Parts: sequence; C-alpha cells; structure tokens
Amino acid sequence: MLVPFFNPKGVAVIGASRDPHKLGYGIVRNLVEHRYRGPVYPVNSKATEIFGFTCYKSISKVPDPVDLAIIVVPAHFVLQVLEQCGKRNIKNVIIVSGGFGETGSEGKKHEKELLSKAKEYEMRVIGPNCIGTIDTHTPVNTTFVVGMPEAGEIGFISQSGAMVAAVIDWARGAGVGFSRIVSLGNQIDVTETEMFSIMVNDPQTQVITAYIEGVNDGRLFMKEAEKAAKKKPVLVLKGGHGKSGAKAVASHTGALAGSDEAYEAAFKYSGVLRADTMEELFDWARTLAWQPLPKGNRIAVLTNAGGPAIMAVDALERVGLHISELTKETRHYLKQRLPVAASVTNPVDILAGSGPATYAVALDALLSDPTVDAALVIQAPQDWFLPASLAEVVAEVAAVHDKPVLASIMGKASVDQALTILHQRRVPNFSFPERAASAFAAMMKRKHWLETPNHEIDKFTNINPKEAEKAIEQHDFENLLESYNILQPPSYLSKDQDEAISCAKKIGYPVVLKLVSDELTHKSDVGGVILNVKNAQEVKKAYTRILKEVKKEHPQADIKGILIQKMLNEGQEIIVGAKRDPQFGPLIIVGSGGTEVELLRDIATGIAPLTPAQADQLLDQTQAGKRLKGWRNKQPADRLSVIDAMLRISKIITDHPEISEIEINPLFVLPKEQGAYAVDIRGSFNHQ
Amino acid sequence: MLVPFFNPKGVAVIGASRDPHKLGYGIVRNLVEHRYRGPVYPVNSKATEIFGFTCYKSISKVPDPVDLAIIVVPAHFVLQVLEQCGKRNIKNVIIVSGGFGETGSEGKKHEKELLSKAKEYEMRVIGPNCIGTIDTHTPVNTTFVVGMPEAGEIGFISQSGAMVAAVIDWARGAGVGFSRIVSLGNQIDVTETEMFSIMVNDPQTQVITAYIEGVNDGRLFMKEAEKAAKKKPVLVLKGGHGKSGAKAVASHTGALAGSDEAYEAAFKYSGVLRADTMEELFDWARTLAWQPLPKGNRIAVLTNAGGPAIMAVDALERVGLHISELTKETRHYLKQRLPVAASVTNPVDILAGSGPATYAVALDALLSDPTVDAALVIQAPQDWFLPASLAEVVAEVAAVHDKPVLASIMGKASVDQALTILHQRRVPNFSFPERAASAFAAMMKRKHWLETPNHEIDKFTNINPKEAEKAIEQHDFENLLESYNILQPPSYLSKDQDEAISCAKKIGYPVVLKLVSDELTHKSDVGGVILNVKNAQEVKKAYTRILKEVKKEHPQADIKGILIQKMLNEGQEIIVGAKRDPQFGPLIIVGSGGTEVELLRDIATGIAPLTPAQADQLLDQTQAGKRLKGWRNKQPADRLSVIDAMLRISKIITDHPEISEIEINPLFVLPKEQGAYAVDIRGSFNHQ
Repeated sequence: MLVPFFNPKGVAVIGASRDPHKLGYGIVRNLVEHRYRGPVYPVNSKATEIFGFTCYKSISKVPDPVDLAIIVVPAHFVLQVLEQCGKRNIKNVIIVSGGFGETGSEGKKHEKELLSKAKEYEMRVIGPNCIGTIDTHTPVNTTFVVGMPEAGEIGFISQSGAMVAAVIDWARGAGVGFSRIVSLGNQIDVTETEMFSIMVNDPQTQVITAYIEGVNDGRLFMKEAEKAAKKKPVLVLKGGHGKSGAKAVASHTGALAGSDEAYEAAFKYSGVLRADTMEELFDWARTLAWQPLPKGNRIAVLTNAGGPAIMAVDALERVGLHISELTKETRHYLKQRLPVAASVTNPVDILAGSGPATYAVALDALLSDPTVDAALVIQAPQDWFLPASLAEVVAEVAAVHDKPVLASIMGKASVDQALTILHQRRVPNFSFPERAASAFAAMMKRKHWLETPNHEIDKFTNINPKEAEKAIEQHDFENLLESYNILQPPSYLSKDQDEAISCAKKIGYPVVLKLVSDELTHKSDVGGVILNVKNAQEVKKAYTRILKEVKKEHPQADIKGILIQKMLNEGQEIIVGAKRDPQFGPLIIVGSGGTEVELLRDIATGIAPLTPAQADQLLDQTQAGKRLKGWRNKQPADRLSVIDAMLRISKIITDHPEISEIEINPLFVLPKEQGAYAVDIRGSFNHQ
Repeated sequence: MLVPFFNPKGVAVIGASRDPHKLGYGIVRNLVEHRYRGPVYPVNSKATEIFGFTCYKSISKVPDPVDLAIIVVPAHFVLQVLEQCGKRNIKNVIIVSGGFGETGSEGKKHEKELLSKAKEYEMRVIGPNCIGTIDTHTPVNTTFVVGMPEAGEIGFISQSGAMVAAVIDWARGAGVGFSRIVSLGNQIDVTETEMFSIMVNDPQTQVITAYIEGVNDGRLFMKEAEKAAKKKPVLVLKGGHGKSGAKAVASHTGALAGSDEAYEAAFKYSGVLRADTMEELFDWARTLAWQPLPKGNRIAVLTNAGGPAIMAVDALERVGLHISELTKETRHYLKQRLPVAASVTNPVDILAGSGPATYAVALDALLSDPTVDAALVIQAPQDWFLPASLAEVVAEVAAVHDKPVLASIMGKASVDQALTILHQRRVPNFSFPERAASAFAAMMKRKHWLETPNHEIDKFTNINPKEAEKAIEQHDFENLLESYNILQPPSYLSKDQDEAISCAKKIGYPVVLKLVSDELTHKSDVGGVILNVKNAQEVKKAYTRILKEVKKEHPQADIKGILIQKMLNEGQEIIVGAKRDPQFGPLIIVGSGGTEVELLRDIATGIAPLTPAQADQLLDQTQAGKRLKGWRNKQPADRLSVIDAMLRISKIITDHPEISEIEINPLFVLPKEQGAYAVDIRGSFNHQ
C-alpha cells in the first residue's frame, strides 16, 4: 500500500506553481526533469497550464490514473485539501507544507485532525513538513530539491529534510548512487519503522540507511529493523545523543543506562549498524552494497608506497582486524613476479615503479591466498600511468573473486576518472586509506550479527509466581528475588541489639550489619553498613554505631531495623540491574559492582528478555566479565551463576510491568560452582 | 644554512633528462612550470640542452650562482657526484636517488659513506630516497610530482614521499594552500627535528604539519617541537602505532607504557597535536592557520536546518565543548529579527526560508555575545540563493570579530564556488558539520597547552645520594626508595619462622608476609603473599604455607627469606612506575594499582622529569586520581603524597641512567595528610 509513494500511476501536485521561487514549482520541475513517465496533474485554481501540463482547479477534477497527491498549500488549507483527496479516492498523500507540530501545541492539534481525516478515508500520509520521496529506478522525484543522485543500491530514510537535501547534493558530487530516498517530516502517519519493509521489499535497494532522531515505538522499531537486517544491511546515523537532562534516579542502573545506551542496545540487538558521522554512514553503505561480506578478519594490503600502507595497517589493527601473514606459496609467487626490492610480506609493497599490470598480478595472488579474507588496494599518486587503468584492473580482478576489495586511489586532482570507474564497477574508494578500516569493521560486525544464532528465551524452573505477586504487593524486593530463586546470603531483620545478637548466632559469624530504611537507599554513604562483625560484642558496638551515624545526618529517617547478614568472603562484586526505558522497554545492565560503579562505568547494556547467549556477550563486553574468568591470582568465579541471575532479573522485569527499576549491587560471585549471592537489592515501581 | 633548500640562488639538477619517463625530466619540468625565477643548470653528460637550458657535462662546469644541487643519478654514482658537489662548493644537496638504506644493510653502509663525504665538505643533505622540497612563495619546486598546491600558510614535513605526493594531489583538488613541503627520505643528515626550526622561521608558514614514522633523538625532538609549538601550532600524524612485538618485561610499567604511549606522552609534553588521520591533520591545519584561537569552549551554532545542527551539537559535546546558552539580550535581539518560527536558543535555527542577509545579522549578533567563544555556521543545501553569497557574508562577518568561525556549507555538487571563496578568505569549511567539532577541540587543546605555566622541576629535600649509590650497587630497590625518602611500611627480612615471629612482634600486628626472591617478582601469583596475619601462631602457619606453595611450582626458586611487613588498612592502591624508553628516555606512569593493573589499564604516561603540575595532570587523567579525591563513602586520600612519590620516582630514574625500570605497586595511599607507603617495589637495571 505504500508502493505508490515510490511508483505512482499518476501524480497530482496540489499547490503547483508557475513561480520559480515557490516549492510548488520545484516539485513539478523535478517530476519533469527527472523523467517521471506517468501523468502529472498540477492543481492550481488560477493557472491554466504549468510546464506544459493542463492545470486543474481542484483535485476533484483530476482524471485517472492518479494514486499519489503532493500537497504544498499553506497550512490552513491542508485539512480541506486532504479531505478532497480522500473524496477523490487517492490513498497516498505527501504533505510538504510546514506549519504544524514543529511550531508548537496548536500545530500538534492540527496534525491530529489531519491524521483522523486520513484514517477516515483510509489514506496513508507522509509528512507534513517533509521533502517527499525519490525513486531513481521508477524514476520519480516528488521533492523540490535541485538535482537527483544517480540510480544505485542505497536506500535512505530521513527524519530530517535538510539531511536529504545535503545527501542529494553530496551524492551528486561524489557520484554515489541511491535507489530510494524518503524524507518523513513530522511523521503523523508513516514512520521510519514502516519504511524498513518498503526498502527491504524493493529489489533495487541493497542497503538501507537512515538518519533518525528518535523512534515512535521502540519495540516495533527493533522488530522491523531486525527483520530488515536479516535480509539487507541496515545502517543508522542517530542524531541527538546529547546529554539528556540528568534526572534524579533511585539506582545506579537509572544513571548508567540513559537514552543513548538504550538506542545503542536496541541497535545492537536488531543488527543495526550505527555510524557516527554522515561520511561513515555512506562509506559503510557503499561498501556493504557493493562488496560481499568477508569470511574472516584477515586483510591483505597492496600498495605502491610505504607511508599510506602504515597508516592503513594502524587503522585496521585499531578496529580489531588482522593483517594476514600470507602463505609461503603466495610470498614465493610474489617474490618471483615483483621487483627485487618489493616487500612480499603483508602489507605487500610493489614500489613506486610498478604499474597496473603488477597490481593485477599481485591482487589476484592475494585474493587467491586462503589466509586472506579481504583486500585493500592503495595507490599513492604517481604520474606515469593513468589511475583510471588501475581502477579498471582492480575492478576486474575483484569481480572474479568472492572476497571484498576496497580501494584507496589517493589524492583528488588527478583521480576523477578512476573514481568514476570504481564506483560504476562497485568497488568503493576512499581518498585516504584509513577510512577503509571502519568500512571493513562494519562488514565484520554485520557478519557476526548474522551468524549469532537465534536462541530461544529459556524456560525457567524454580519460580514461584504466587510468592512473587505477594512480594510485589508488599514492595519487598528481597522476597521477590527469593520467589525467582536468586540466592541471597542468609539474613534476618533485627529490631534491637539483643535480637541482632541472636540472629547473628543463628547465621554464624562473621556477619554484616545493614541499615534497613526505605528512604536511605545508598546505605554505605550514610554509614549504614558494617562488614566482618565477628562476635556478640562487636554486634553490639556495630549496632549502636550505625544508629548513631545515621541519626547524625538524618535524624528523621524512617529506620525499619538492622539486617544481620552472612558475611561472604573471596568473591567478586558484580552489578546486575534492569530498568524500563520509555522508548525500548526493559533494559538489562551488568558490570563491575560495588560502591564505585559510577566511577568505573564498566557497564554493558542489553535488551530484555535476554537469551543466555546475549547475557554471555554482555558480560564479555565488561572488564568484570573478564575478571570472572580468573585474573592473576584471582581464581575463576561462578560466571554461570551471574548469567543465571541476569536471566532471572530479565524475567522479573519482563513479567512485572509495574517495576520500573530493579538492581542487585553487589551480586557477590563465589568461585566456580559455588554460586552468586545478591547481597544488596533495591528497586522502584512505576508511579501510577 | 638550510634556507637554500627552499630559496636557492641557483639550482643544478644532476641527472637531468630529456626523457619524460625519467625523474630527472620531471624535476626540471617542475622548476620551469612552477616558475622558479633563478637559474636552472641541467647536468647531463650527453644532452646539450633541456627545456631550453644549457646542459652541463659535470657539476664542476656549472657557473655561479648555484647553491642547491639535486642528485638523481643511479645509486652507485651518487657518492662520486656528491664529492663533485662538495668540490664545486655547493652546500645544499637533495639526493632523490633510491637504492640505499631502504634496501638493506649494504645500502646502509653506503649511506654512511655519503654522510661522511657530506661532513668532509660541510654539505647539508636531504635524502636519499626522497622527493625533495617545495616553497610556494619563493616559488621553487624541486620535486618530480605533477602539480603544486596553491600558496598558503601550511608547512608539511614528511618521512614518506608517497604521503607528499598524496597531499599535493589532494591539496590541488581541495584548494588548500601550502607554504613549504619537504620529503625527508632516509634522513641520513637533515631530520624532521631540524625542519621544525626551518618552518618556524619561515614567515609564510603559520602552521607546521608533519607525517612521521619515528624520530631519531626523542629528547631533541621534544625540545625542538616544544620550541616550535610555543610560536606556531605543530600537528603530527604518526604512522606505525601498530602492536610492537610484546617483549618479556619484568614490570607492569614495561607492559603498559609501550612505544606508542611514549610518543603520545612526548607529543603532549611538547604541545604537539596528534591527528589520527590525514583528513583530520589538514582539517586542523586549515583551522589553526586561518582562525584565531578561541578564548573559551562555548560554541554558537547557526543553521538553516535542524538535523545537521543536531549532528553538530552531538559531535561538539562529545569532544567536551559547550553549547553557549546566549545572553538574554542576544536571544531578544534575534527574536526581533528572525522569522517567527526560528529558534533563538542555541543552536540558532533561522529556518530554510532565510538567506545570506539573515545569516549575516544572526552571526554578527552571536559573535558579539560575550557568552560565545566561537561559531559554527551550517547551511543545508537550498536552491534559492547562491551558497557563494553565504560564503562572502560569513567571511566578512568573521573578519571583523576576533573569534574563530568555522563553516559547514554542506553538499558537494552545488558548493564549489562557495568553498573557493571561503578558502580564499580563510574560513575553513567542512562538508559535514561533525568534522568541525574535532577542529574546535584541537584549538582548545592548543590553547590549554599554551596556557600551562612552565614550572621548574622541584628542588628535592631529604635525598641521601650516598645511600642511593650504595643501594644501587647492591641492587636494593627498598633502600634506594628509602634514600629518596619514599615511605615504606616498617618491615624486616626473616630467614626462619622464629625470626619471623620476633620481627612481627617488633612491628606490631597485623602484619603481611611476603616472599623475597629475585626470580619470582610477581609474588601474589605464586602464593607468595599472605595478608592480615594477626598473631604468632598465624605467622608460623603463613610462613610454612608460603614456602610450600612456592616450592610446589618452583622447586628451584632462589628464596632469600620472608619479609615481615606492617599491614596497612583503609588505603587506596596506586601504581607509580618509571621506565626508560629507547626513543624518549625516562617515562613515568601512574594509575590504579594492585594485582589488576593490566586488566584495568587505568594508566597515564608522562615524561620525566615531571613538574608537580604535570604529575597532577597525569593523576587527573585516571580514575585512580579521581578516586583519590574521595568517592562515595571513601574519604579523600593523601593525593599530595602520591604526587610527591611520582616526583621522587621521576628524580630517581633521571638521576640514575643505569636503572631501566622501577615500579611501586601498590603505593598504599592513606587518608589525607597521613601519607602514602610503597608496599611493594620492583625494578631492573640496564644490561651492560
């Protein structure tokens, strides 16, 4: 149903104009200039003819075939015109006109009216306040932006019209082709998420790129993005990382997993590759559209000069790629064929005196080497052969191997023809070789994501839903954890010193004394925790000291008692937390626990519900996860128990939408097969 | 004396050729085409005339004036020709010919002969295996590379000829001007370091850029780079970060402060700004050459579209810059003058309908605002005014304010004229606004470095040089630290259990038992450390256990005894180390100590001798340094004692060239004003 936006049978432009300074002129001009083959119907109450097309007084007068209307009239006419489109039975409408949600609450109200009108007539609407759509293969260009990129394989979805204008202008200059481009404007109806399927189903689009500033429905976005990414690479540039105003939060998890971490986790989960800059976005897009994915991370570098190769190797190693060692056979073969002084170890330097033929022989040998997964060909400027000849040779050799080849024919003044050839023959070129490294890394990321198996979420045993419900009613996170079978050190709440001593006796020394208070959640900060208490006398002292310390600063604090807990030794401290993100729902964090979590910021963020594989990967991203495997004289800890706790926390927040945050810090992890204990737990509920 | 390389009175080309495929042709062509105004003397035994110049059979026949010779004959003739130059009394020689050190040890030998010949005749030599020199203002171009950049303010020193060729080609295409360019080749005589002074003393050069793969004399490099950086920005792209083969090292310091960390520390020390890519190098160079340094880090962003401004703000905040809030007056003024729907808070969005006049008014207001230190002007492509007009306006407004202005007139196809104007008028432009952020950040780094006062190295008290000498003779690092007045916890070496008990009594419980062995330096790893030993019986047990544990794995280990040491509580663990880098001499590291230093890698590296201010800055770069200031319930520690220990370690390694590494780990830092104790010390000496 969205297809007519990119392949209409006929297009009406309501608000078409003869005045070159009006947008309604540019739209008709673009339909004509970029050779839309269907009928074009300008609608304008005053003119009789625009660009040679008969002009219609009203959309109701426009004859068949017409299935797309572009509205570019002043804001206060839009609703009325939209209704006319509905009556004329046009199901696809692009509203270019601005003056709606972007201007404030009054404008937002008008958007609601537009949407309900659209629903009434079963119309789909892109915009308002947008630039429109381009399909270079149909071809159709419903925008007013001057120029159009060449036909190509890159689809681009943008929440910013300016980015579309910038990309069109840049693409024309750089000779990079696009398949479809869409500017979504205020998104009252069609959103970025829906556009994924439109791009995936377009046979011309090989790579989907998007500039987004936010998503409407995080989980739906993830679902559709993942579905798309299974078939085609999805690359996103996300605007607005910025420091979101730091709100007061009850837990570390809240402070550590901000909006940007949520997007990051959602992108990773869905296989969306996130670029940091526009340049990177389209470097990656060209590479993924044009070249096959590598089978591994071993790169061969072929060059005619040392300096640029060194820069390339540095950049490749920085992003975790390897410089292949090459087989003895390849080195031997190269030795025979290259100049005497050439380097036949990787990077292979054929020296300044070698031309396209030598490049051809060497590149073919490198791509035939089983220890090479991909190649980067570098040419420092020289003046004795045409860079274009090298472009032809590289493209020809690359085409007969199924390994990715990237080029860096360096320079600017002398290389235009070479770049045109490379781009036509689908070998991406980078004016400095360092940039190729990030493109290779993007390929590897995609490969890894595609290869990660789709684990099912575990079926859990040992969960007591009834006890859980009761614990939640009572806002009792300790019992909640117990009902989900997350181990806690034995502990009792005591109301006075004598009770404390008898509790300690039951548990066995040494013990820990901990303040219990709903108000003071960061207990250590207020002197509310005393460790390693060894006998009755020490319990007495510790009890008095806690009360004294706490009352000094917080005389009014509501103290529920002192918890007596088994003291655990020789463990590693981990934080495991969950919070509900407004966009993406429940997130899980894990990392180095203890009192310094916010100093260390050794944290990974994932999306709940977690699979065991995902939990494992998250742990691997942190130093804490590495330390759990054993470090120096620290023996390996019970990593599996940490993963189990993560999965159960993930299950808790998934099962109970009323919980907004829950956090174990520290989760005290004992040596292998001895378990992990939730020593301290805090959480909070959604405010109803 | 190096000036004739860039401003010769007459140039002889020995090996000049009439064959366009020979380098000796390209050199004469470039002298002619790029309008060198002095006499050119081709030397060629066969030809009579090249490019209209009379040809000479030998350099001895060349008449005055001639003070620069370019040698481009086969390698085996070079020595002989060099001697002829010496006899002809030419003091400056560029050897373009290759076939020397780059081919192996034979070639290296020939280089030595060349150098001694040069010394004999007091000649200065650039090369061999180089591309030569360019001065766009003289003008003179002694290279064979096609084309020459426009005259400009950027000087470029390169250890790679290919990088020079690439930069020339890129600069011509991008319209970026250069003042001087030099390719240094194998550097038998003139080095990168010497070139700094030549660039600093050139009035046309405003910024010095360099591509280097290594330096000959690290300390001299630092001295000259610092001298240069005090006067002009010095920017370096360093090739070859790569993993240098990890050698076996005795200490953490050795593993943590590799060659790249040494370069990084040396660059920071000398005020050299290190770029990561060629693009970044020249983005920064243009910016620093053309625009004044900002007074602070508050940026105003002026745009005609939201999306690109969001990307810019993200990038600016990522590198630590602030988006100015603007004064009420500025916002009020803008409110009156901009379209109703415009955003008058920063980023200021004048909307797509605004033209160059609106930009002019808004930019002038922003640059007049006292809360704005610099401005970034963004233009998303539009088709109703010429980008060139905006370029004119931006350059004009920028010129009357003393604040830096960067531009991002986006796109490629439509902006050529605008970019030419901006570059002519010295406003750097970036095709996507994100790139401007890194240029602003480079400016801020330079500003901070220039403002850091030059502290004198402290005069130390309480050092006992005689004791130090004795300790070094005995390879006794504990006594060495004592002689430099670095505190250590009271301790005694015991040879058996009884002695251990009596030592412990003298010190007072609790104590720590530690294996002493020259071979086993990582004691904890072999079970050689037992903490918190509380009485005589525990001493006995611990003693036996250490010996048993150690002998299990290392039955042959040379055990000198067990150290009994005062157990310290409630401190923070820091590592302070020093090592001698082959290039840059003594380095100091500091960071999070304990057994996990290599896992945490929370380390900063500096150059010895340290000033107190430098030590303080190093500490500030680490989490450990932040933690010392107090964190959550951890009280502030004795940070000054850490700085004192760093300065004393710096003094030790500076005073004693025979020490190759020395390391305190942990330095146990007690609460404020209670001192810091070197709990464990290791070190090693240079192998003689």
